[in-house]
Amino acid sequence: MVENEDIQVLKKVGEKLKQIRIEKGFSQETLSYDANIPKNQVGRIERGEISTTITTLHKICKALNIPIRELFDF
Amino acid sequence: MVENEDIQVLKKVGEKLKQIRIEKGFSQETLSYDANIPKNQVGRIERGEISTTITTLHKICKALNIPIRELFDF
Repeated sequence: MVENEDIQVLKKVGEKLKQIRIEKGFSQETLSYDANIPKNQVGRIERGEISTTITTLHKICKALNIPIRELFDF
Repeated sequence: MVENEDIQVLKKVGEKLKQIRIEKGFSQETLSYDANIPKNQVGRIERGEISTTITTLHKICKALNIPIRELFDF
């Protein structure tokens, strides 16, 4: 099944987020708390289930203390 | 007036998009056509008026032939 390119990008961003989150020692819960976003949103972004916004990415990256572009290094 | 950090990020991404779009010789209209997004959306993103999604950024960057991270190089 050839996946839609958009879904592939969302999955890559999600995988990158998960990798960095774990490297930085955050659980999905603590990251969502620190980023002030709904608890299940981190998991849904990591699984590539939702196409989140620049603002949410900014909140997550601020909590992880990384530049947003790092989520797109793939 | 100290602007909300989120608004600042949206404005920076918008400015970066405008800079690259012009460098590549696209009008807002041709870019929105090639990216297959609503005509006014490119302008609204460039002015930092909306916090668009990863999927829309991917469509725009594919049309501009740049990696998404380039929009966050600031």
